[in-house]
Amino acid sequence: MKSALASLQRKLARNKYDAILISQPENRRYLSGYSAHDSSINESSGCLLVFKEGDPLLLTDSRFQLQAEKECPSFDVVLYKKGLLNLLEKLFAALPIQTLAFEGNYFLYSQALALQKICANNGIKAVPTKEFVERLRVRKTSAELDKIRRSVALNEKVFQKVHRELRPGVSEIDVAQRIESLMRQYGAERPSFETIVAGGPNGALPHAVPTSRAIEAGEPVVIDMGLVHDGFCSDMTRTVVLGPADEFTRNIFKIVRQAQLKAQDAIKAGVQCCLVDKAARSIIVKNGYGKNFGHGLGHGVGCAVHEAPSLNSRNRKKLQAGMVVTIEPGIYIPGWGGVRLENMAVVQENGLELLNRDDTFLNFGEG
Amino acid sequence: MKSALASLQRKLARNKYDAILISQPENRRYLSGYSAHDSSINESSGCLLVFKEGDPLLLTDSRFQLQAEKECPSFDVVLYKKGLLNLLEKLFAALPIQTLAFEGNYFLYSQALALQKICANNGIKAVPTKEFVERLRVRKTSAELDKIRRSVALNEKVFQKVHRELRPGVSEIDVAQRIESLMRQYGAERPSFETIVAGGPNGALPHAVPTSRAIEAGEPVVIDMGLVHDGFCSDMTRTVVLGPADEFTRNIFKIVRQAQLKAQDAIKAGVQCCLVDKAARSIIVKNGYGKNFGHGLGHGVGCAVHEAPSLNSRNRKKLQAGMVVTIEPGIYIPGWGGVRLENMAVVQENGLELLNRDDTFLNFGEG
Repeated sequence: MKSALASLQRKLARNKYDAILISQPENRRYLSGYSAHDSSINESSGCLLVFKEGDPLLLTDSRFQLQAEKECPSFDVVLYKKGLLNLLEKLFAALPIQTLAFEGNYFLYSQALALQKICANNGIKAVPTKEFVERLRVRKTSAELDKIRRSVALNEKVFQKVHRELRPGVSEIDVAQRIESLMRQYGAERPSFETIVAGGPNGALPHAVPTSRAIEAGEPVVIDMGLVHDGFCSDMTRTVVLGPADEFTRNIFKIVRQAQLKAQDAIKAGVQCCLVDKAARSIIVKNGYGKNFGHGLGHGVGCAVHEAPSLNSRNRKKLQAGMVVTIEPGIYIPGWGGVRLENMAVVQENGLELLNRDDTFLNFGEG
Repeated sequence: MKSALASLQRKLARNKYDAILISQPENRRYLSGYSAHDSSINESSGCLLVFKEGDPLLLTDSRFQLQAEKECPSFDVVLYKKGLLNLLEKLFAALPIQTLAFEGNYFLYSQALALQKICANNGIKAVPTKEFVERLRVRKTSAELDKIRRSVALNEKVFQKVHRELRPGVSEIDVAQRIESLMRQYGAERPSFETIVAGGPNGALPHAVPTSRAIEAGEPVVIDMGLVHDGFCSDMTRTVVLGPADEFTRNIFKIVRQAQLKAQDAIKAGVQCCLVDKAARSIIVKNGYGKNFGHGLGHGVGCAVHEAPSLNSRNRKKLQAGMVVTIEPGIYIPGWGGVRLENMAVVQENGLELLNRDDTFLNFGEG
């Protein structure tokens, strides 16, 4: 975190910003270690005010004081009683800031207008930035990769236990609850997103919400799950079938798995993200299911479960070594269901390091 | 929902807005019934576009198509492939809109600038609104109150079961997990916020995160929990002691409970919110613990677990019949712990309807 903070301070100096206000929760934790959650963007548990030099501040309210002081020894904790903007107004009068950056892609419009007004009153220029800290997060350090590896391993441990227990007749909700309960039992902070368990027709919704529907033998069951451990996320999808799968199901599996393998083969530093998406998509299109793969191939994972880079058909940016991405092709057929297979991998100069070891997608439930 | 939509359309007409874009998740659900979650403000599961007359639209992507069509029969579902703004650009060219409202208090600054640009290109005036829909939600209808009553009753059922099971030695995390697991088992959609279980010194943080610390006999354990049922939230706090409580603990309990009762007595339509806060706060101040009650007395509850009105020392607005509020005084002592007691109530013309029936705060663990 100290190195992240130092990188940010150098970036501030290069951009001639005297300070930056950090409101985005993952950026805040990445820079400070502060792990409090925001119930919503309207219910922030605090902001960082980082100067191009000198000690940074963590601005929060009394509910979070003890936690902030405990978790963020490098930050001076300053409490507000009448809201963030009221405190900033007081601080600005006393601080030698000429240009203040704020996160334009994670600051509400109404708040930004109020901030700009306060800044103007104090002769400060307020500059919205876009992904200023996010860009620092895209290439992972080796310490960060270690944390991601542990997060992935823990996620697989949970999946494997639940997979062994899985029997026809249990409801999607029961399976999802069991997954999230084991995550915490095994030491995760929390799920990194709402767990998806979608059997049969429900699997046709890529973002299905678990229902009370009982899982049946022979149908594809999409399980998409991830957790946060030590501040870093994991994300994986397996589609399992209890008992023998019919020919149609086996065929869909094979297409999706082939698409995934093609994409994994395509990944290395320097390759455009859209070409990785294309590697997978062309297999699915060739088999006549192009319209049944309505989402992008994958996304970056780190402090946030969805972050840069996006692996989709429009992103022409190039992969860089140290990025962590998901590879998750799927085929969704209304009325029948879906198959999605998702791995995580680290981009390397000449290929990738596959983070997932679980190979349940090869098991059609027959042995 | 249909009546909420009709109210909104009348309000649009009164304000001379041709349409409004709804991005705030609770407003979206309130008006449409669409129950999808946003993982974050950057990961929206869709927006509503409501016109002053005619059929409203629900704009989302293919992942949510089936859910949106199923849940929102009154809305035409329109899918975007390249993001919301791209779709809006196409729609605006075809729609006779002169003035478009958007939610300035739930729209990101960078997005708002992009929206304003698209609007300007199409001769549309984009107007940020503040709490335009939220204000429609403040006074609950009798059907909404019924849903809230059921949400509170379910929350109490979970608390009572967990309270009966509670023994020294179990960890805060285990208790929190048990609570959230029972919530789902009893039919809740999900917790309405992250459950707080904070024993002994941990209770000194009003928003404590459950830890692996074992609960001990004799110490105060703050349990703050709520759930969402049928789209409506509940929220309650009890502080329990396992086994006999010492004189100091009993005294703190009595002060907090007395503060709560005073505030409950003060509630009725027409009373300023700050006076309800004052009724509780003056008891705590009088007993020398004013500095140990660092947050406001309460907040509104409905589709969102925190909504208007705020019961704090600064809010001079008056309570209205049909509002639903929490009454949650607390005393927090670093090193020792905390006691918070929280009830929910409906404001009535001449008093209140207390929604919580559980009276565990009177039980000091001795009977």
